[in-house]
Amino acid sequence: MQGLAASSKLSLSVVVVLFLLGLASAAAHGRKRIVSSSSDEPCTKMTLYLHDILYDVVNNTANATSAEATKPTALSKSTFFGELVVFDDPVTERNALPVGKEVPAARGQGFYFYDKKESFNAWFGLSLVFNSTTHRGIINLMGADIMSQKTRDISVVGGTGDFFMTRGIATLQLDANEGTAYFRLKMDIKLYECYV
Amino acid sequence: MQGLAASSKLSLSVVVVLFLLGLASAAAHGRKRIVSSSSDEPCTKMTLYLHDILYDVVNNTANATSAEATKPTALSKSTFFGELVVFDDPVTERNALPVGKEVPAARGQGFYFYDKKESFNAWFGLSLVFNSTTHRGIINLMGADIMSQKTRDISVVGGTGDFFMTRGIATLQLDANEGTAYFRLKMDIKLYECYV
Amino acid sequence: MQGLAASSKLSLSVVVVLFLLGLASAAAHGRKRIVSSSSDEPCTKMTLYLHDILYDVVNNTANATSAEATKPTALSKSTFFGELVVFDDPVTERNALPVGKEVPAARGQGFYFYDKKESFNAWFGLSLVFNSTTHRGIINLMGADIMSQKTRDISVVGGTGDFFMTRGIATLQLDANEGTAYFRLKMDIKLYECYV
Repeated sequence: MQGLAASSKLSLSVVVVLFLLGLASAAAHGRKRIVSSSSDEPCTKMTLYLHDILYDVVNNTANATSAEATKPTALSKSTFFGELVVFDDPVTERNALPVGKEVPAARGQGFYFYDKKESFNAWFGLSLVFNSTTHRGIINLMGADIMSQKTRDISVVGGTGDFFMTRGIATLQLDANEGTAYFRLKMDIKLYECYV
Repeated sequence: MQGLAASSKLSLSVVVVLFLLGLASAAAHGRKRIVSSSSDEPCTKMTLYLHDILYDVVNNTANATSAEATKPTALSKSTFFGELVVFDDPVTERNALPVGKEVPAARGQGFYFYDKKESFNAWFGLSLVFNSTTHRGIINLMGADIMSQKTRDISVVGGTGDFFMTRGIATLQLDANEGTAYFRLKMDIKLYECYV
Repeated sequence: MQGLAASSKLSLSVVVVLFLLGLASAAAHGRKRIVSSSSDEPCTKMTLYLHDILYDVVNNTANATSAEATKPTALSKSTFFGELVVFDDPVTERNALPVGKEVPAARGQGFYFYDKKESFNAWFGLSLVFNSTTHRGIINLMGADIMSQKTRDISVVGGTGDFFMTRGIATLQLDANEGTAYFRLKMDIKLYECYV
């Protein structure tokens, strides 16, 4: 597995803040806090792909990575209103499923549900769980997934391990869709609070 | 639709911090970070009303904006223990449902469930989705809704667009209640981390 | 009930920041913001135990504090894939259930669900609700609970009252497990953003 395409862009101001904090806490052994002063300058960026293979009852138990915990409600079955899906999806750096014994970059674990009468629309709570030589730790995300928009943002609200206390934005975009059986979501993740 | 009643109260200290950051990052084109130094001084405030019209199976499909994804459990049916509701509710600035072709200020999209045996009590995960000339973006919230208290606070844990990376508190208060058919929640939203 | 074992470790750098902010905002009446500059130095720490007593349909209605809102899916019944549990659990400072009329330190209110085919794994959204002379307020948490690890971290993403706007990490460890009937989770909570 290659390293994640994570770039660190530190603005001068961030460096100044870090330097000032460093004067007082140079003896600390842990990670140091960096906060971007501008929305133009994430401290970390990466692009990942979430692969969701929905269990279809018939014959894909081996491949499926998600399942319906609840069925759509009678309020709007056609848009799956109220359907809750729980998942443990592979997450990759390339926009293709892992082949053979290839280990995915991370697991995407969490839930989504459909919540609109007039059209498809969803809401996500999920964790990106990294456990490799490249990254160890978790990025936690949540928020409305406005499926009618080509790209839409959800919130990175916390993190652990290599992503200790992080915050930011994940921009989602549908990258492939095979009916109810499979979808692939491109996730452009930009972190604006980092401890490094 | 009128503009949201959002006021910006910047403490002197915040201005000082902003000024200092500005010295180093004046060339950045994006939003600038503002953090309130005190709980007395939100950087943004607004009051909104969430209208939840529960689907009642019989005859309100056209009006309903929420539905039960799960039924109450046998542990305590009388307090709806374990009932999960998914919603896409209109959110307004006035404490009345939109009339005619009036467009709501936002949509409240998310879920709540009841979680107490002895009395009604809930837990919320929701997004306030703004898509108007006044505001474009999302505020993400979560937390226990202690229904036994007249006013209770949940957390604003993130935001996107006009509410990029925001954090804060939403104070909830029941503003109207018509049995299981309809409730209206007043939400006083105070944001203490803003990028402007 | 004894006071919570909360310790405040303020690094010199935090004190310096607080002092500088204080120069400008000394007139403010509210809480003042403290941010740890290093992951070694939480502004608050506490250890708590969450007691989850699952409703078993038969005879424990009086004791049960959680219930299955959904049953495991056919994708993997043996690992409870897709089972959603809603809870209102007692939270204590000692690793024992409250005895007699002893009031728990807090309530843990929220949900978890199982999300893995190959083994047990969970995802949590919960609030620690304090309402005593020692603490009044809420800590909000979420994230993947990687049950295969002896200790694992979830995110503190917000707070209210005494825990206004807090952020941090909760390290979870299984402290007792009696089949599906009862488990006790040790929670080492470290907060790195505090308003005091």
